[in-house]
Amino acid sequence: MLLDAISKAGTIALGGHVRPDGDCAGSCMGLYNYVRENFPEKEIDVYLEELPNTLKFMKNTDKIRHEVTEEKTYDLFIALDCGDMGRLGFSAVLFKKAAVRFCVDHHVSNQSFADQNYIMPDASSTSELIYDLLDYGKMSVETAECLYTGMVHDTGVFRYSCTHPSTMRAAAALMEKGIDFTKIITETFDEKTYAQNQVLGRALLESFLFMDGRCIVSYVTKEEMDFYQVKAKHLDGIVSQLKLTKGIDVAIFMYELEHGTFKVSLRSSEKIDVSVVASYFGGGGHARAAGFSMTATPHDIINNLARRLELQFNSGSEAE
Amino acid sequence: MLLDAISKAGTIALGGHVRPDGDCAGSCMGLYNYVRENFPEKEIDVYLEELPNTLKFMKNTDKIRHEVTEEKTYDLFIALDCGDMGRLGFSAVLFKKAAVRFCVDHHVSNQSFADQNYIMPDASSTSELIYDLLDYGKMSVETAECLYTGMVHDTGVFRYSCTHPSTMRAAAALMEKGIDFTKIITETFDEKTYAQNQVLGRALLESFLFMDGRCIVSYVTKEEMDFYQVKAKHLDGIVSQLKLTKGIDVAIFMYELEHGTFKVSLRSSEKIDVSVVASYFGGGGHARAAGFSMTATPHDIINNLARRLELQFNSGSEAE
Repeated sequence: MLLDAISKAGTIALGGHVRPDGDCAGSCMGLYNYVRENFPEKEIDVYLEELPNTLKFMKNTDKIRHEVTEEKTYDLFIALDCGDMGRLGFSAVLFKKAAVRFCVDHHVSNQSFADQNYIMPDASSTSELIYDLLDYGKMSVETAECLYTGMVHDTGVFRYSCTHPSTMRAAAALMEKGIDFTKIITETFDEKTYAQNQVLGRALLESFLFMDGRCIVSYVTKEEMDFYQVKAKHLDGIVSQLKLTKGIDVAIFMYELEHGTFKVSLRSSEKIDVSVVASYFGGGGHARAAGFSMTATPHDIINNLARRLELQFNSGSEAE
Repeated sequence: MLLDAISKAGTIALGGHVRPDGDCAGSCMGLYNYVRENFPEKEIDVYLEELPNTLKFMKNTDKIRHEVTEEKTYDLFIALDCGDMGRLGFSAVLFKKAAVRFCVDHHVSNQSFADQNYIMPDASSTSELIYDLLDYGKMSVETAECLYTGMVHDTGVFRYSCTHPSTMRAAAALMEKGIDFTKIITETFDEKTYAQNQVLGRALLESFLFMDGRCIVSYVTKEEMDFYQVKAKHLDGIVSQLKLTKGIDVAIFMYELEHGTFKVSLRSSEKIDVSVVASYFGGGGHARAAGFSMTATPHDIINNLARRLELQFNSGSEAE
């Protein structure tokens, strides 16, 4: 169906969600490369915000358009990995005007906002959906690299429960294209800078357990971030590392956005729904991963959090 | 061929290598459970040293024999994940006496020391080889859990270059048996105790770069290990985390075995053969993972290491 829509269009635009991650970039660039390689007569443009440097190894990322220079009307706009039109960001203006709007996504919140929708909330990643929709025999190694990257990022390297046997088999087929999968995982997913490792180390060392060891918390101040010369995006993964602590149900990581205001990230086991807690403080998210911002000292935040977490623990209701 | 040997034997013993890891335990327990479930008339015993607690979730690990109480002559002894007879440890005495000796292994150093050998040096794991040799239709979910665990451990969760498309497809098939793969990865591979995270944090925070940022080193003393109440086995993974530092070619982690003597672990990129360096100091290992022990202060060790590493860097020869 996607290939059918592509074959009928003369001009095609692709767009993904704001602050593109591995799956968003992988699905967009995988499809972009596939169309350029197999439909050389089509005019195709890809619209995405600036990618993290680690994802720029993907073929043709230098051709990504970071702004809309001309409000042209494309025959087909394909929105990828994007749950609603707002998440498209700067390219939404092109989406609205396009003759045919197509959406491929795996977010459970997706309300089928396009004309044609291929939404599989259970899928590992949008990249796996794109893999399914394209003709395997016509995928180049460069396209395979993009799709494999997206699958790796949204499955936490084949470990999250969204990973299905189909995901493993798709990865196997992409590996057979000759991609350097070890390098992709290391350089786009695992690798950290020396400063990132220092901050991770500090966060682990200064973490402490509370509520009888069911919760773990750590934080870094703005001053510390400046000292190590790291920004918010460099702190990815710290809350996940805390979450791996044996025996805990909730991991909390906070960093100072600006003087006195902290961004708080929560991760939980199936026993606790942290989205309820985050909502109480004006934030949001999912049952097992949620967050909010608060202007207070770290200890005030922890004390407030502890009360709300206690209610969740006592409610005894399992998170979905 | 393995099933053929099993069907001909009345009494069977299984043995793996000393200090059993995930693949050794997974392949032994996977095969053990398979035989018990499908050949109830056979007498089968499994001989292994004490398993790490995290691996004891596997079915029938309470039946493992940790010593040889009777030097009986089995019809068939199957050595798994074991490169030579010495590595069998305490069960070698039973291997020697068995009427038929069979070996399934993926170590490149294996010299086919049994009567019948199924040695595939390129395979991800002995568990994948066992998966290949058994009848998929007759594997229980408990057998699948064991084999999946072994594959996950020896591939670093499907990321090392020993991971093949066949590995991914075998994992997919094992997932279809209904295993809780997320729980297996978390609880046997990812999870760390609070104390382990503290020591990891400290090692990262106190790490430093040398040789123009091409090497990273960190160490913990006996006193620190006592303070955190961790033993050598709890330090697994620290050198791997150091190795993930962007831009480095060699990661070094040392811990104090006893007063003044350090165990030194080396990990390297393909640019450096650390086995040469380790051999120089009386140790050994592989091109990208090697180690040795030395009685000296950490700074003496680093200075000595730096000289040998410099020779390796200057030799310009790529490690195999």
